Amino acid sequence: MLEQAVRQRLIDIVGPKYFKDDKEALVTHSYDATPMLQAMPDAVVYPGSTQDVSGILKIANEHRIPIVGRGAGSNLCGGTVPVEGGIVMVMNRMNKLIEIDTDNLTATFQTGLNTKAFHQEVEKLGLMYPPDPSSMVISSLGGNIMECAGGLRGLKYGTTKDYVLALEAVLPSGEIIRTGGKLYKDVAGYDLTKLLVGSEGTLAIVTEATVKLIPAPKYKKTMIAMYKDIYAAARTVAAIVGNRIIPATLEFLDNPTIQVVEGFNKIGLPLDMDAILLIEQDGLDEGVVEKDIVEIVRICQEQGAVEVKMATDAAEAEKLMFARRSALSTLARIRPTTILEDATVPRSKIAEMVIEINRIAKKYNIQICTFGHAGDGNLHPTCTTDARDHEEIHRVEEAFAEIFEAAIALGGTITGEHGVGMVKAPYLEMKVGPVGIEVMQGIKKVFDPNNIMNPGKIFAKEYRKRVVVQQ
Amino acid sequence: MLEQAVRQRLIDIVGPKYFKDDKEALVTHSYDATPMLQAMPDAVVYPGSTQDVSGILKIANEHRIPIVGRGAGSNLCGGTVPVEGGIVMVMNRMNKLIEIDTDNLTATFQTGLNTKAFHQEVEKLGLMYPPDPSSMVISSLGGNIMECAGGLRGLKYGTTKDYVLALEAVLPSGEIIRTGGKLYKDVAGYDLTKLLVGSEGTLAIVTEATVKLIPAPKYKKTMIAMYKDIYAAARTVAAIVGNRIIPATLEFLDNPTIQVVEGFNKIGLPLDMDAILLIEQDGLDEGVVEKDIVEIVRICQEQGAVEVKMATDAAEAEKLMFARRSALSTLARIRPTTILEDATVPRSKIAEMVIEINRIAKKYNIQICTFGHAGDGNLHPTCTTDARDHEEIHRVEEAFAEIFEAAIALGGTITGEHGVGMVKAPYLEMKVGPVGIEVMQGIKKVFDPNNIMNPGKIFAKEYRKRVVVQQ
Repeated sequence: MLEQAVRQRLIDIVGPKYFKDDKEALVTHSYDATPMLQAMPDAVVYPGSTQDVSGILKIANEHRIPIVGRGAGSNLCGGTVPVEGGIVMVMNRMNKLIEIDTDNLTATFQTGLNTKAFHQEVEKLGLMYPPDPSSMVISSLGGNIMECAGGLRGLKYGTTKDYVLALEAVLPSGEIIRTGGKLYKDVAGYDLTKLLVGSEGTLAIVTEATVKLIPAPKYKKTMIAMYKDIYAAARTVAAIVGNRIIPATLEFLDNPTIQVVEGFNKIGLPLDMDAILLIEQDGLDEGVVEKDIVEIVRICQEQGAVEVKMATDAAEAEKLMFARRSALSTLARIRPTTILEDATVPRSKIAEMVIEINRIAKKYNIQICTFGHAGDGNLHPTCTTDARDHEEIHRVEEAFAEIFEAAIALGGTITGEHGVGMVKAPYLEMKVGPVGIEVMQGIKKVFDPNNIMNPGKIFAKEYRKRVVVQQ
Repeated sequence: MLEQAVRQRLIDIVGPKYFKDDKEALVTHSYDATPMLQAMPDAVVYPGSTQDVSGILKIANEHRIPIVGRGAGSNLCGGTVPVEGGIVMVMNRMNKLIEIDTDNLTATFQTGLNTKAFHQEVEKLGLMYPPDPSSMVISSLGGNIMECAGGLRGLKYGTTKDYVLALEAVLPSGEIIRTGGKLYKDVAGYDLTKLLVGSEGTLAIVTEATVKLIPAPKYKKTMIAMYKDIYAAARTVAAIVGNRIIPATLEFLDNPTIQVVEGFNKIGLPLDMDAILLIEQDGLDEGVVEKDIVEIVRICQEQGAVEVKMATDAAEAEKLMFARRSALSTLARIRPTTILEDATVPRSKIAEMVIEINRIAKKYNIQICTFGHAGDGNLHPTCTTDARDHEEIHRVEEAFAEIFEAAIALGGTITGEHGVGMVKAPYLEMKVGPVGIEVMQGIKKVFDPNNIMNPGKIFAKEYRKRVVVQQ
């Protein structure tokens, strides 16, 4: 509960309609899409302008009240759970698409704008904003920027950080800074734009952004390749790229995932396969897309695919992609709690990583299905479990710690696109080392000396010591 | 001159062959490619390993001795001039190409490696590392990373920061950090990789890097379009991109540049044109490249090009591109001092910027030729002058200050690809504001609390106040 004077000052800024501290508001903002995490805030505010944000931050900073910026709360790292209480600042009123500039191929928007709605406006003009996180139907662009969201098109098109050109951001002091511009080239000082992308609300509140757009591909081809040998599937991934073809999408489903997806959805996936690759190529020229797909089919066969099928029309393509897109929601139906992780390894190490995951799942006697963006090594080992079973959850936690260690041992990282938040904080030191942590904490302090910006995220009170991975 | 004990400790690290403080060594490392800047270092060292670098930095940090990392010294912002004395650390012994990984499409190298030599190794494998600064024949990759080098292919392929995936860097404390990995997706904490790219040697010494490679385009077409109206040329630039075509190269030469280049080189450029566009498209498919070029020709004509010529063969293409590539070296022949700047504006503002530059040149009665990367708004207004004429140089400085103001007023920046260094330091506040400066200085202090890393760069003792640009 905030003191009455603070409460009143916040109401003075946003108006009584946009300040809430009734129980319903507090409970609905006590959690996000991450399982098993919850903490009550003291208030929820809905700023209507950058000036509002500035005013709110000034008050919070003066009174040392934690501020948790929130878009749609669709993150998977506990990024918007107000673990130290304070004010949840919901950005959804600030959702204006300010401009699509077709001369400079940029778009400028307030960060509360919905990702999917933005995609649709951009696509009307024959343009594309590539980052397509699976949550895009509900996610906000501000959330995408704060977590550096990826998606299915990362291999070919990159992630959020590759598209953000300029930001308007409010520092905890209430000061407003503008970084970058409608510029592909700008080396005036340190790159604060890229530093803020992926900073998880711990440095500043981003109120406005300008992003790069690209011409939308006009043609798309979809195919599926099936394998009895997980190494053959993994070799295919490296071989496609090694043959100088960068597919738009190159997704992987392992056998446990296939079993569950097929069991529920009956879309005709082969239950006896060790792995499936779902591949899409897109482009501005039909002939080139066709040529790439023919070459990809050849590579799949050469690397030992048992069967390769091309979608003959859009409906069939949609059906194939549904297998991948429905993976998470289907897995979520089999047990009460679903934990979706995003350990990421170099593309060439996917097979080894999947084998490791399966070994670890067996060791701890838990169920893990693995699918994900094979093209960029970004796997989603997903555990179906039950949060009420403390003993099992303990085993799950031990297993994931070992999975993160295995990813790092293979030259990978603890998180490819979900962010650190609360969930990965204990493992960050494994990846960046104690000196890396120290530098990052120093940067945090420069922006936020009073530690009011999303406290309790990225940096852990205690780091898990890295142990040697058993081979 | 360093104290004898420090001198001996440095010699103990690198060996007597790789420590120099004779007059010749000091003088040859007292300047770089930037005109009119010179300052003597106290010593020059040539580390042979990351451990050497670490040892040298520890000593420098302990004794508060400035450290200036240096590749080939080909930067244009005074970035490697040892303005506060100290040790120039030349990285050219650490020039090993460690690996080209064709599965993951990455390359890993020590940062002293020559850019052109690296390009050639990569190209042998049908791959491409796109950043191609004009200095690439002599520049080092470490210098490219520290300045975030661009080049002629920036519009389509981006700049250095778009390709660096991982770094090994030595902090002033001597501690070695590793950032990133062979990973397209990695959101484990703040993005220190992108923060170090473009940090101009002020935060750390980068000893090793892993960069992303892409499949090399197989086909290329070159053309030239000539204009009697600078606005028509500028409109063409926006119209090409607005028509969803991203050319590999889209270069601009204004009339003063054409006059000088043609006067010296006699390659048949039309002296009566206001502007020329040099355009190249490349790609993996000949038909697509051909189709793009046909469409570009149509757009050029539609926008008012007086004449459009396509290169019929590689020799003619080479001749056309020579006009652009020789611009700087030709301009350098007409007067003793050549000052090449890189004010950058949004693509749609090029015409306005060129008009402003010409107005300002006239106002101060100086000669400025403008050419550059029109596709990404990165112009190179180049002044031919004489450093010995103090009165004229004063006018040149006033003119450039006004040019930077004009660029910012048009939504641009003071430097697109050359870096801030000493040259742009007085103008940085115009672009990023006092709060931006404060944040950047805070970051600097986190890495380098004793201010030994390339002191006197990026941050000015005094900033030039921004004045309203006269319209």
